[in-house]
Amino acid sequence: MTEQLLIRQVRPWGGQVVDVLITDGYIRRMEPDMVVDEEVAVLDGRSHLLLPGLVNAHAHLDKNLLGLPWHKNQLTGNRVQDFVAYERRVQREVNHSPQVQSARQIEASLATGTTYIRTHVDVDAEVGLRNLEGVLATREQYRDVMTMQVVAFPQGGMLSLPGSIDLLEEALKAGADCLGGLDPAAIDRDPVKNLDTLFTLAARYNVDLDIHLHEPGALGAFTVELIAERTRALGMQGRVTISHAYCLGMVEPDYLHRLIDLLRENRIIVMTLGSGHSPFPPIKTLYDAGVALCTGTDGVRDTWGPYYTIDMLERVKLMGYRSGLRRDEDVEMVLRMATYGGAQVMGIQDYGLAVGHRASLVIVAGDTPAEAVIEQPPRTYVIQGGRVLVAGGRRVD
Amino acid sequence: MTEQLLIRQVRPWGGQVVDVLITDGYIRRMEPDMVVDEEVAVLDGRSHLLLPGLVNAHAHLDKNLLGLPWHKNQLTGNRVQDFVAYERRVQREVNHSPQVQSARQIEASLATGTTYIRTHVDVDAEVGLRNLEGVLATREQYRDVMTMQVVAFPQGGMLSLPGSIDLLEEALKAGADCLGGLDPAAIDRDPVKNLDTLFTLAARYNVDLDIHLHEPGALGAFTVELIAERTRALGMQGRVTISHAYCLGMVEPDYLHRLIDLLRENRIIVMTLGSGHSPFPPIKTLYDAGVALCTGTDGVRDTWGPYYTIDMLERVKLMGYRSGLRRDEDVEMVLRMATYGGAQVMGIQDYGLAVGHRASLVIVAGDTPAEAVIEQPPRTYVIQGGRVLVAGGRRVD
Repeated sequence: MTEQLLIRQVRPWGGQVVDVLITDGYIRRMEPDMVVDEEVAVLDGRSHLLLPGLVNAHAHLDKNLLGLPWHKNQLTGNRVQDFVAYERRVQREVNHSPQVQSARQIEASLATGTTYIRTHVDVDAEVGLRNLEGVLATREQYRDVMTMQVVAFPQGGMLSLPGSIDLLEEALKAGADCLGGLDPAAIDRDPVKNLDTLFTLAARYNVDLDIHLHEPGALGAFTVELIAERTRALGMQGRVTISHAYCLGMVEPDYLHRLIDLLRENRIIVMTLGSGHSPFPPIKTLYDAGVALCTGTDGVRDTWGPYYTIDMLERVKLMGYRSGLRRDEDVEMVLRMATYGGAQVMGIQDYGLAVGHRASLVIVAGDTPAEAVIEQPPRTYVIQGGRVLVAGGRRVD
Repeated sequence: MTEQLLIRQVRPWGGQVVDVLITDGYIRRMEPDMVVDEEVAVLDGRSHLLLPGLVNAHAHLDKNLLGLPWHKNQLTGNRVQDFVAYERRVQREVNHSPQVQSARQIEASLATGTTYIRTHVDVDAEVGLRNLEGVLATREQYRDVMTMQVVAFPQGGMLSLPGSIDLLEEALKAGADCLGGLDPAAIDRDPVKNLDTLFTLAARYNVDLDIHLHEPGALGAFTVELIAERTRALGMQGRVTISHAYCLGMVEPDYLHRLIDLLRENRIIVMTLGSGHSPFPPIKTLYDAGVALCTGTDGVRDTWGPYYTIDMLERVKLMGYRSGLRRDEDVEMVLRMATYGGAQVMGIQDYGLAVGHRASLVIVAGDTPAEAVIEQPPRTYVIQGGRVLVAGGRRVD
């Protein structure tokens, strides 16, 4: 039997009011004042905005402390290594369960309209496959409502932590979709060997790469060049993401534009959160130059610092704020990173607001997409494959 | 007849649970498990945090578009002058009422626990006293529940807009509490004459000064020096605020420390919001050096850009995020700017959480003050002079 749902009176991306007919999980018709012969369930869209399901293209589902007592942050040190050591100590103290915590974050994400998540999961010789197993169990539990990609991520180090490479390979065999990397020079101390190892593994298992790059200035820029060279050599255009890429916000304009050319030619995707304190990629410059961009939440309520956001609309607001983007059209550009840009990096083919696309949809009040970003009202409805997951801001399924 | 209110079970600034007895608007007793002989009204504090009323030390109550249809921002240009011209055009188009709009912002502020506001109000030869009259009417309307200071602010220029100086003087006679300034070099083109005029007026009317300073780098730092020289010469220590002071986030450490010495010696207060895109004062460095600091919302939902916050807890979160402050104790430092720091700049003598202080209080869920800053729950109660203004996040009075 066909399952049908009719949404009356919504404005796709703030445009004209239409009705939307969903059949078997896909958008089948979109038109004003639709006449439907059959009996179908109807939702009143109240002339609110219709957006495609939000995409969190950079999460760490295995790190959060959601639902646990407030963690009083007493972190010392400023290096990634300090943050990792502190995190692992606290996680042991609170007897942290990756499965329970990742499920909590999925629930909170669905409630605000995120229906696609790429999550990095710690895999290295210190934590083994424990976190991966928990997150994979959560992925299975939520497979009908949340589209998830799992990146095996050597948070504790790859070359610098013996045994990690074998575990990354095991993770790919166990169900991880992508391979992650971390600061090939600053953490692993050998950028060429690190990247050769990563690209070789990625090619062998035919998976995409997503590399955390916190390295500053000229060092990070050198690593970007090394990544681009290997992307070209292995024909991995469109399958490599650089996450954070702070260096793109630190180099001189001339050098930045040479790096932008490399990114565009090799279809390397840049993931940025906007960052609170550090320089970060100039998103409007990259967007205008045709570099593919996406965004995510990074860790939420974890030990890396107190600030976090689960709602991708809030993330868009923060990134626009940090980027000094004042015009509505620029805010909408950032929103495209949290929707179409994220879908591109995750390789979602049936994503969008047109007939034939999967009915993964968010309905939210707002005169324009920018107003929804700024005001972040509770989601009127969140729909996934025709199922109503959220109504009036509350999970109902 | 004495009016009394007993608050059971609250934790002042996250400390031990106490009961608080309020008599005639002031805190009269604070102790655990208080025995009270008389019949008194009782509030259940549910072991939540007790904070002093939040202080928005930098608002523009005459600029917001709250309650009006979403304004689609189409600003062009990057200079303060561009922003002002755009704002005044839009305000004419929407037939903007300073009285109605300022009252809307007061209501929204009370709902989140802000009970003290210093607001700048545009006074110059272009707008005349129109905005001032509207905001003064609102101040009168809310005098029992909101402590307000009004700064006469030459947004359109002082020396550079003939007639503005006379209007500033009229504003002080009409009820403005403080005198404001704006970029003495970058906008008014003559920093010495601008500051001499401002300080002379302030001394004549015996009012505090609060100067907007967006000037970057060495230019802004030079203006800071000029302000400090005049503060010392006129004996205005403790009565001068520099708002924004982006330049303090742009100069080299050695020069910064010379400027910090000038600020501390002359007890000049620095107001910063954290800023989205621009460098801004390094608040922890200033705090540790003994410089008085406060913060505010700046404009909210106006034409200067889409980003805004009314809730001072959200402002504290944003500023901590922008400052890279990860430890709870540092988040609490920022919260002190939005409470005690703001009370200091406004000269509120009876401010705080001890016996004898005015009962201007916020009760909010949270294990620690940092948790309240990050999670921003609806305010359990907001109390002003013993009156309950907000219960369960809603205005009740």
